[in-house]
Amino acid sequence: MLKSPPAPDSSLDGAFHALADPSRRSILDRLSRGSASVSDLAAPLPISLPAVAQHLHVLEESGLISSVKVGRVRTCTIEPAALRSAERWITKRCEGWERRLDRLGDYLEEKDAG
Amino acid sequence: MLKSPPAPDSSLDGAFHALADPSRRSILDRLSRGSASVSDLAAPLPISLPAVAQHLHVLEESGLISSVKVGRVRTCTIEPAALRSAERWITKRCEGWERRLDRLGDYLEEKDAG
Repeated sequence: MLKSPPAPDSSLDGAFHALADPSRRSILDRLSRGSASVSDLAAPLPISLPAVAQHLHVLEESGLISSVKVGRVRTCTIEPAALRSAERWITKRCEGWERRLDRLGDYLEEKDAG
Repeated sequence: MLKSPPAPDSSLDGAFHALADPSRRSILDRLSRGSASVSDLAAPLPISLPAVAQHLHVLEESGLISSVKVGRVRTCTIEPAALRSAERWITKRCEGWERRLDRLGDYLEEKDAG
């Protein structure tokens, strides 16, 4: 059997990796309610500012957020396209599985009726 | 300001971590089309059987799959509840952001009209 590597989609790797951390999910949750400065994002988190900056770096690299710096203030914004692409990957697999269960249900009904 | 840690949800940590690897997504993709044995899952992957076993362990720990061993054959099945819970987390944040954009659009329209 010809072995081909899984279709590479490093953007999904990065997005799911970024989502796997509770501080980063907390930042995304805050940003889903509107853009925010780094210090606003850091305020409710029980971690150091450098740790927040590191999380923001991971989020930005993954394409889940973008940021602009004006003067000394960096403002972060959620990027829904990358979130939607991660969501779409999951949705398709759930739907695939559910379609399969439906077909199995149909088969069992037909068998009962037959 | 009172700093509280992000609401812990280690099941989401595990699910997103599991989803961040292309071999594990490839396994989930295959399982979304029906349960499969470990050797069936390993066949198309360009990695060793121990590496596949390790990925299956991560997937099982994260709750995204379950497995049963009958005789010498272990059969894996996707667990859609864990996938749906990861999907739901993302969907909520996208919807939050889109609601916010809608409100901004309404405000700008009212401002133009006023």
